[in-house]
Amino acid sequence: MREHSQWMQQALHLAEKGRGFTSPNPMVGAVIVKNRQIIGQGFHQKFGGPHAEVLALREAGNAAKGATLYVTLEPCVHHGKTPPCVPQIIQAGICEVYISMIDPNPLVNQEGIRRLKEAGIKVYTGLLEDEARILNRGFMYLIEKRRPWITLKMAQTADGYVADLKGNSKWITAPPARDFVASQRLLYDGVMVGVGTVLKDNPGLLPKKRDGYVPWRIILDETLQVPETAQVVSDDFKHRTLIVTLCDENKKLYNHFSAQGIHLLSIQKGSSGRVTMGETLKCLGEFGITSIYCEGGSHVAGSLLYEKICDELQLFIAPKVLGEGLSTFGGFRKSIEKPLPLIWDEIQKIGPDVLVRGRLDPCLQD
Amino acid sequence: MREHSQWMQQALHLAEKGRGFTSPNPMVGAVIVKNRQIIGQGFHQKFGGPHAEVLALREAGNAAKGATLYVTLEPCVHHGKTPPCVPQIIQAGICEVYISMIDPNPLVNQEGIRRLKEAGIKVYTGLLEDEARILNRGFMYLIEKRRPWITLKMAQTADGYVADLKGNSKWITAPPARDFVASQRLLYDGVMVGVGTVLKDNPGLLPKKRDGYVPWRIILDETLQVPETAQVVSDDFKHRTLIVTLCDENKKLYNHFSAQGIHLLSIQKGSSGRVTMGETLKCLGEFGITSIYCEGGSHVAGSLLYEKICDELQLFIAPKVLGEGLSTFGGFRKSIEKPLPLIWDEIQKIGPDVLVRGRLDPCLQD
Repeated sequence: MREHSQWMQQALHLAEKGRGFTSPNPMVGAVIVKNRQIIGQGFHQKFGGPHAEVLALREAGNAAKGATLYVTLEPCVHHGKTPPCVPQIIQAGICEVYISMIDPNPLVNQEGIRRLKEAGIKVYTGLLEDEARILNRGFMYLIEKRRPWITLKMAQTADGYVADLKGNSKWITAPPARDFVASQRLLYDGVMVGVGTVLKDNPGLLPKKRDGYVPWRIILDETLQVPETAQVVSDDFKHRTLIVTLCDENKKLYNHFSAQGIHLLSIQKGSSGRVTMGETLKCLGEFGITSIYCEGGSHVAGSLLYEKICDELQLFIAPKVLGEGLSTFGGFRKSIEKPLPLIWDEIQKIGPDVLVRGRLDPCLQD
Repeated sequence: MREHSQWMQQALHLAEKGRGFTSPNPMVGAVIVKNRQIIGQGFHQKFGGPHAEVLALREAGNAAKGATLYVTLEPCVHHGKTPPCVPQIIQAGICEVYISMIDPNPLVNQEGIRRLKEAGIKVYTGLLEDEARILNRGFMYLIEKRRPWITLKMAQTADGYVADLKGNSKWITAPPARDFVASQRLLYDGVMVGVGTVLKDNPGLLPKKRDGYVPWRIILDETLQVPETAQVVSDDFKHRTLIVTLCDENKKLYNHFSAQGIHLLSIQKGSSGRVTMGETLKCLGEFGITSIYCEGGSHVAGSLLYEKICDELQLFIAPKVLGEGLSTFGGFRKSIEKPLPLIWDEIQKIGPDVLVRGRLDPCLQD
């Protein structure tokens, strides 16, 4: 079993290389093994490109006959941007297939496994399934909940303030925490802030290492207040900026941004007369974004929690006390008997700061 | 060296047994060893009682001749409540003395060591000194800073509130954290709260195990608002309650409490026309209290931090969000450029809650 795990680990490692480029498709890695040697491997490199299994089969060539395939997601049976993988696996003469997780996509969902078995191939599922599910949690959320995975990151003082009473928030945390955040941005399809944060801090929202990947920089901006000079709409990566706005506001600026290659996503007021986070995220999911790292500010963070949308909370707690200041989560008020319940999963020190990782208590979620 | 450490560890272990009963004296333990065997041991059991060295010498009797003494604090040379230890050590024929830490008391401070050496005894200092200093940090603070050691414990929600907007705070944390707090109370001479906490929560402030020891329950109550029915002034341990109040307020109630065996400590308004924490703590030090576990509320906690008095901060962070509520540290306001800087030392999970332990950045202290 350890050997099988080792090959699947390699497939997961390969899958990870596609991060940021495959959405809304999942990241997938595949390894073909014969006589305890890898004879072919591949990963899904970008949306619309060839699947991991196909690349691995190509590399293995005729040697694939009688070999074992390790693949992190159930192979597909449907014609998408590329032909289905299952027939190619069968044709290549693969005799055993290890699969981490079943594809939740209704077009596949166990049909791939059924067809492989039908062709006489031995199929094993569930090997390193947890790891595979974490890898593609965004992809799964989009299929299952019709919205991206949301990680909410907030940085506050020991006494729970994100800024002092003058609104100044630079800097709550020290450089190691800010580096950590910049690295986290690499792990998501998009980084999201409210327009207030753009107006106040003018952040670049760029990841630490720009190894070709810049996540979507999503600005929630109902009334299109982003100034033309803001970094996110004027730097070299402005084609990776996505402004979410009400369609009927400020047509002129809308067209200006559009002409600059900046993406705009028009949303509409819901039946309540306001834009909910739920509706906004649904639109972002339809746009192809499977996971978002939300960096505030207070109003956006409060709206997410209030609507019970927070799959992971990263709360940085700086060793500083302000006494008074701006609250971390704006816009709602709960009692001690009925607070919004969280679960703390992990704590760690990052430089002088503390990072507490948690999530909304799932009992509350539905 | 390991063997010497082992004997000193035993002496420290013995010293700890006096906790709560020796203040404002230090806790001290002593072990006399000959031919790798303990032939006498003792600890300072209560203020005014015999010293650890003397008890150990008594147990060793004539066998003490030629033996080695391990003692956690430099033996004394002055007549206090009991005769000095150094002459007795010399007379017993002890030939070697290991000492953890020098006694900072100006009446001793290295004079004990000098006299022992003068008598031809080999003296080694600094063995497990860190442990000895932690053990008696209250005693040292009282000598060096003229005030007790202060640990401030606060329990807040993830977003930094100690109560909801209605003032309700029961319960922010879960039972494991509350048990932890009850155990901590055993480690201090006093547990302190503001009268607001008594009025709101009517706490008992008792330690978890009542093995004969109940710390002073210190209530900061300038205008004597503690109701006669409050637990701290009506339960079986009311003789261990100490109300700190302005002397010229509410004589009648003052005398009533006094008649009940409740202690009252009269303080005076400072030159500023108000009572500072610094002045209050100085009075508590003079009363004989060397260490305090302060449990709030917000106003007391804010006053301590504002006056830069906080030798340890224990901040419980509960997995709950209120949105709005009462702030943890009341009464001051800092900017993000000049916050009150802390240092985080340790983080741990206690049940579902997180405990962050830190202290005021010492750069700020003076």
